[in-house]
Amino acid sequence: MNIVFTFRPSRDMQSDIQATFPNETFSFYKGIEDVLSIEEAEILVTFGTDLTEEIIRQCHSLKWIMVASAGIEEMPLQAIKERDILVTNARGIHKIPMAEFTLGYMLNHVKRFAELRTLEQSETWNKQLPLGELCGKEVAILGTGAIGQEIARLSKAFRMSTIGVNKSGHHAEEFDQIFTIDELEAAVREADFVVSVLPSTKETVDLLQPEHFEAMKQTAAFINIGRGDLVSETVLLSAINDEEIAHAYLDVFAIEPLPEAHPFWRHPNITVTPHISSVTKQYVPRAMDIFVHNLRCFIDGGDYANVIDVEKGY
Amino acid sequence: MNIVFTFRPSRDMQSDIQATFPNETFSFYKGIEDVLSIEEAEILVTFGTDLTEEIIRQCHSLKWIMVASAGIEEMPLQAIKERDILVTNARGIHKIPMAEFTLGYMLNHVKRFAELRTLEQSETWNKQLPLGELCGKEVAILGTGAIGQEIARLSKAFRMSTIGVNKSGHHAEEFDQIFTIDELEAAVREADFVVSVLPSTKETVDLLQPEHFEAMKQTAAFINIGRGDLVSETVLLSAINDEEIAHAYLDVFAIEPLPEAHPFWRHPNITVTPHISSVTKQYVPRAMDIFVHNLRCFIDGGDYANVIDVEKGY
Repeated sequence: MNIVFTFRPSRDMQSDIQATFPNETFSFYKGIEDVLSIEEAEILVTFGTDLTEEIIRQCHSLKWIMVASAGIEEMPLQAIKERDILVTNARGIHKIPMAEFTLGYMLNHVKRFAELRTLEQSETWNKQLPLGELCGKEVAILGTGAIGQEIARLSKAFRMSTIGVNKSGHHAEEFDQIFTIDELEAAVREADFVVSVLPSTKETVDLLQPEHFEAMKQTAAFINIGRGDLVSETVLLSAINDEEIAHAYLDVFAIEPLPEAHPFWRHPNITVTPHISSVTKQYVPRAMDIFVHNLRCFIDGGDYANVIDVEKGY
Repeated sequence: MNIVFTFRPSRDMQSDIQATFPNETFSFYKGIEDVLSIEEAEILVTFGTDLTEEIIRQCHSLKWIMVASAGIEEMPLQAIKERDILVTNARGIHKIPMAEFTLGYMLNHVKRFAELRTLEQSETWNKQLPLGELCGKEVAILGTGAIGQEIARLSKAFRMSTIGVNKSGHHAEEFDQIFTIDELEAAVREADFVVSVLPSTKETVDLLQPEHFEAMKQTAAFINIGRGDLVSETVLLSAINDEEIAHAYLDVFAIEPLPEAHPFWRHPNITVTPHISSVTKQYVPRAMDIFVHNLRCFIDGGDYANVIDVEKGY
């Protein structure tokens, strides 16, 4: 089997993979532009942002694309679908870093760490800052897959109640209550935190509308670690400026990098982070575990992990 | 029964308590200096910092002191012991806010929120900051009572391993492994976080010595939410300056408030907070729950919660 990586895992990881599958031919490239004979690749391992329709057409022998990330929006899905190429991704490896990141900002919010930092910088001892707790609070999570469930699991460990929102209202582990996307207003009404982990699909673009922010508690914090196009910047900025909600923690944006001088950067009630919630030193090793599992299935048969429905886009 | 409060819970709480015990006489004062006839008090409810030997001598009828906090270091324990007065405290109500506070700083540390904040302030989009995870890391907790166990429970929810340290090495829930205080060096050796929740007793003053910091990982973070006299400021400052450990998160100090211009305030590897980890809006309500339980025991018999061994001081 001819297996082409369009990125380079560490040398140790490369040798490990080769040693695990001694009969297969692996080649590791720094980028897709360096690949010598892509037309011979039967399996492509990629971060998913380097494929074009043109490349898919060149890849006569391609049977499987392993995307070592979760976002597949930039992939030429139509061309892939026509050729009936298997697509799997690294969904699930994001759940740990993204859930930790989310709980980190939830704790920052109730424990007022930003204000404590400001006090420290001015050498001010002020015990009168009334700190809150996560205990007893409610979190509404838009998206009840692996990431949403991990956030819910940790929230429950903090003695919070958990609301999940998904398309059909189907059951998901770790949620006390589930709402459908059509019931979004009801779902967010009592929440102290509204967290979105939703991908960008035709159903999720501009999903959050002014009425949803109006329905939220004025003390609520909104955390978006999914995709920036979930809510238009105008709608979000109005909600914040009109004090419909207390704070927004944004890791994702309509345009990334967030442009210089964008009003989000300096807004006192908006915290901006550079699409970093899933970034972790454990990223590539975890993606490789999924790849190894799926390669075994490819060779010997078995149930693939994380097969993408190319039609639906997730 | 003549029950005297040397602080004032909210009016609602006062009426609730009176309604729960209609046959008892409650009086609520703003401070001990306002109490009209303290010699008639049979039960004193206090935050524990306003009692003196002189006052204990005046209180001829005193049978029980309910301390609505956890620290009893400022109490005239000798005088109390001679009179064989029951002392109970609010131990346990601190566990939720203190554990949340601790996990908050642990997440801040691995997720580098302080650096992300600095990037934001300079409107810099930098995705190259390698963020860490709590998952897979180890926390060593000095003190395995209610607070230590709650920190350990949450740490385990984050998929961490947990080491506990207590005097005798006795078993405690939520810890993967327990060490005695004599084995402290071994206990902290592999820890990514060393957290102290220890009270101030003759065994804990200056417990942490240079060799303990030398034994710790250079990447370790030390979090002290117990008492400041656990480690001398000189020892701690040397450990930080010599890079024996990476960071100290300090909520407690030998002298509080931390004096102006103290080197801890501006040290880049020390985070100072104003003894605030246990402060929460839920504090007094939770203390009152314990008081109500114990008052029932006082009247009808039963097992008191949180009885203090006046000899041992905890």
